[in-house]
Amino acid sequence: MSKKPNKLKARLPRGFVDRSAADIRATDEMIARIKEVYERYGFDPVETPAFEYTDCLGKFLPDTDRPNAGVFSVQDDDEQWMSLRYDLTAPLARHVAENINEIQLPYRTYRAGWVFRNEKPGPGRFRQFMQFDADTVGAPGVQTDAEMCMMMADAMEALGLQRGQYVIRVNNRKVLDGVLDAIGLGGDENAERRLTVLRAIDKLDKFGTEGVRLLLGEGRKDESGDFTKGAELDAAAIDQIVGFVGGTAQIDNEGQAELDQMQAIFDACGYGADRVKIDPSVVRGLEYYTGPVYEAELLFDVTNEKGEVVQFGSVGGGGRYDGLVKRFTGRDVPATGFSIGVSRLMTALKNLGKLGQTEVVAPVLVTVMDGDAEALGRYQKMVQDLRGAGIRAEMYQGNWKKFGNQLKYADRRDCPIAIIQGSDERAAGELQIKDLIEGKRLSEEITDNVTWRESRPAQITVAENALVETVRKLLADQAEDRARSANAGAA
Amino acid sequence: MSKKPNKLKARLPRGFVDRSAADIRATDEMIARIKEVYERYGFDPVETPAFEYTDCLGKFLPDTDRPNAGVFSVQDDDEQWMSLRYDLTAPLARHVAENINEIQLPYRTYRAGWVFRNEKPGPGRFRQFMQFDADTVGAPGVQTDAEMCMMMADAMEALGLQRGQYVIRVNNRKVLDGVLDAIGLGGDENAERRLTVLRAIDKLDKFGTEGVRLLLGEGRKDESGDFTKGAELDAAAIDQIVGFVGGTAQIDNEGQAELDQMQAIFDACGYGADRVKIDPSVVRGLEYYTGPVYEAELLFDVTNEKGEVVQFGSVGGGGRYDGLVKRFTGRDVPATGFSIGVSRLMTALKNLGKLGQTEVVAPVLVTVMDGDAEALGRYQKMVQDLRGAGIRAEMYQGNWKKFGNQLKYADRRDCPIAIIQGSDERAAGELQIKDLIEGKRLSEEITDNVTWRESRPAQITVAENALVETVRKLLADQAEDRARSANAGAA
Repeated sequence: MSKKPNKLKARLPRGFVDRSAADIRATDEMIARIKEVYERYGFDPVETPAFEYTDCLGKFLPDTDRPNAGVFSVQDDDEQWMSLRYDLTAPLARHVAENINEIQLPYRTYRAGWVFRNEKPGPGRFRQFMQFDADTVGAPGVQTDAEMCMMMADAMEALGLQRGQYVIRVNNRKVLDGVLDAIGLGGDENAERRLTVLRAIDKLDKFGTEGVRLLLGEGRKDESGDFTKGAELDAAAIDQIVGFVGGTAQIDNEGQAELDQMQAIFDACGYGADRVKIDPSVVRGLEYYTGPVYEAELLFDVTNEKGEVVQFGSVGGGGRYDGLVKRFTGRDVPATGFSIGVSRLMTALKNLGKLGQTEVVAPVLVTVMDGDAEALGRYQKMVQDLRGAGIRAEMYQGNWKKFGNQLKYADRRDCPIAIIQGSDERAAGELQIKDLIEGKRLSEEITDNVTWRESRPAQITVAENALVETVRKLLADQAEDRARSANAGAA
Repeated sequence: MSKKPNKLKARLPRGFVDRSAADIRATDEMIARIKEVYERYGFDPVETPAFEYTDCLGKFLPDTDRPNAGVFSVQDDDEQWMSLRYDLTAPLARHVAENINEIQLPYRTYRAGWVFRNEKPGPGRFRQFMQFDADTVGAPGVQTDAEMCMMMADAMEALGLQRGQYVIRVNNRKVLDGVLDAIGLGGDENAERRLTVLRAIDKLDKFGTEGVRLLLGEGRKDESGDFTKGAELDAAAIDQIVGFVGGTAQIDNEGQAELDQMQAIFDACGYGADRVKIDPSVVRGLEYYTGPVYEAELLFDVTNEKGEVVQFGSVGGGGRYDGLVKRFTGRDVPATGFSIGVSRLMTALKNLGKLGQTEVVAPVLVTVMDGDAEALGRYQKMVQDLRGAGIRAEMYQGNWKKFGNQLKYADRRDCPIAIIQGSDERAAGELQIKDLIEGKRLSEEITDNVTWRESRPAQITVAENALVETVRKLLADQAEDRARSANAGAA
């Protein structure tokens, strides 16, 4: 095979994306609202860096088909392997273990951060994405898991979701362990097969009961023809698991007792089944969970990439991971926590119109009619005066000689106002103020059911020293129009 | 050499650090204040991911002694090399080039993000750190560079720095190019030596004039004995450069004319030499700058790790990079921008008491006297009621059986109030509210010049349904005490 020389082409590696202003603002708004809930619950921020030693991270990714893959790793000068974190839980366990003598337990912290997966990218599947986690470390009782579930529910409502648009579903690994014991999958020697069963159940949403049956049995071929080997259980065992997951069979063990305790707390605090609901089909695909597991699900319909109408589904989850810190310390440090998939939740909220509605007005544009240093100083001074009064403003920074380009820029950027001062106005100590919104409205002859106030003139001439006050007044008028129009639209 | 087997030890790779709650809060506060300035200047956020193809990033790091080092790189499935970004400028150039047909120029954007350097870590020198950049792309005139300098100055003041505590220093690469031409270092064939000269000059702050002379000549040996090869100029050339950089020699060329234009704009906008100052010693160590370069410097003294009192120095800088986008597009896309070193600036501001003064009150602690599901539900309900009223609160999540541990936790966490309800209080429909701040004050018998209001009781018993209102009142009293004490301290 011959290699073509690569021309220097501007391109991003597959699975990575740039973020637009609208997405950044929506994400920031979302994170701020969630953070407020976590803070109110008594959590404080703590963050870890992007890299960890590979052995500290451990191998807890669901993607066991590709051992050593799944993460991005590099070898350091001293030959130790480092990896980019694939979640925020394993690094937190390292952080707690490393500082166990200084940390006051229980340790209640939250963090938002980028994580990295070296996987095959797909639609909506990225190799870098943001998670937002909260964890309580050093908390042995399921009251902590119950609190986590209620905090997730409160976070969903802080984002504007209504009852019925979300639910927190809860289960307990120990319950399922009872079922697995019953079908002879107990003991260390069956750990791998138990994990295969867990991952099969975790696919219930995606593949339905029939798909899960295949994954519990011989295996399943997907649409592309790829075959996933199954857990190779016999028909009776499969029936037992499917019956249990479907809620038609019950089991009475420690896990169930813990779920009952959690339910008592939900009841006492008034969190009904429309907010937090025990559901035997929740398992979570990660190996390190040891007790309660929970998942936040959005219940409204969306159309997926195949054109099918489906429920939006999981936007985050977590559970109890009593063994993660122990890997380092040798002593029990019980912990529980969850993770929100930030981009996925943000997409959902944007679709619902719950985010990014905050009005960001584009800057006032001071146009440039003359490019000598003195004139530029004058224009820039106008801009600085506007900014000094708290008004978003900028001078045109492109090639000023084509005035048409300046107005085109103002238009494409949605500038609300343009300031113009040619040599005549300059001589008269005046400047022109162009209302670009009104100009657009007049030129488009918009007619709607809004009761417009009398039209403003699209352009006025004022004295230089009236710049700031006139612009401020005009921006206020425009804001009032927008509010009136939004009200009319809502009515 | 025999290798010891590594025990699983919780440790971070060298050059990486965890971030504490105080540092995260201070950084967030700082970024929010800077962002406000950038927004007012008309800039919008845009972000790129952590990875770029290695060839897109280019090799613009100052660390040329270690070719192929300096960055963290991994090879993708398709054998293309990807690297973690080492700054935010090269990725922005890629982003603009990739989207050049959709982007309206001039393109004014900002972004804060982590960057990575695969370097030898040292004191205050990390392999992951945060930069906060602003750039205008598609702007050919130096009025844009002038605006960048004023924006940096405004950002410094938005952070609470006074005149005299900072200065933005400005120079122009083209001026220095004139000097280099004059000593026979013009032309493409001398590009490498010119860069060595630039980097020597850039070390003026660090090594003084004598150190720079050595780096311009044969080279310099540092304290550890490491030798840095010099630019091998002769004595006359060295004199010429040192004289120019010291401001005792002048040159009259295009670069100087551009600086004069910028000065005229600074003057027109009222940015005096106490804010923005032209200074021939500024060069910036990066190769890609093509015109004006600028640097934000903090002027107050700090004690460095050697115990010497030094000026805090640079916290960020930038310049014009007209060639970076052209690498991809082949067409001229002039640009200028700067970068703030977030952690470094945050450290400086914290030292000055300009950040992190915002009061974060620790949560009210509801203690646990009884651990059955019913009691836990009751305690958790109290917590949820407090939270519902906007009060930061938590139930004790550790092992509740040792009550002393609960109070120790409250103390170490600085909880302002503890709620206690044993079975007797429960039977009477009451609970105890402990004022932990007052308790601490009484036990320490603090005497100072503050006029204290009459002591509150350190513990009161109230009816269950008075919980929220009593706690709210107590927190308000405590806040008032803090304010009074702060005022007394300031007086």
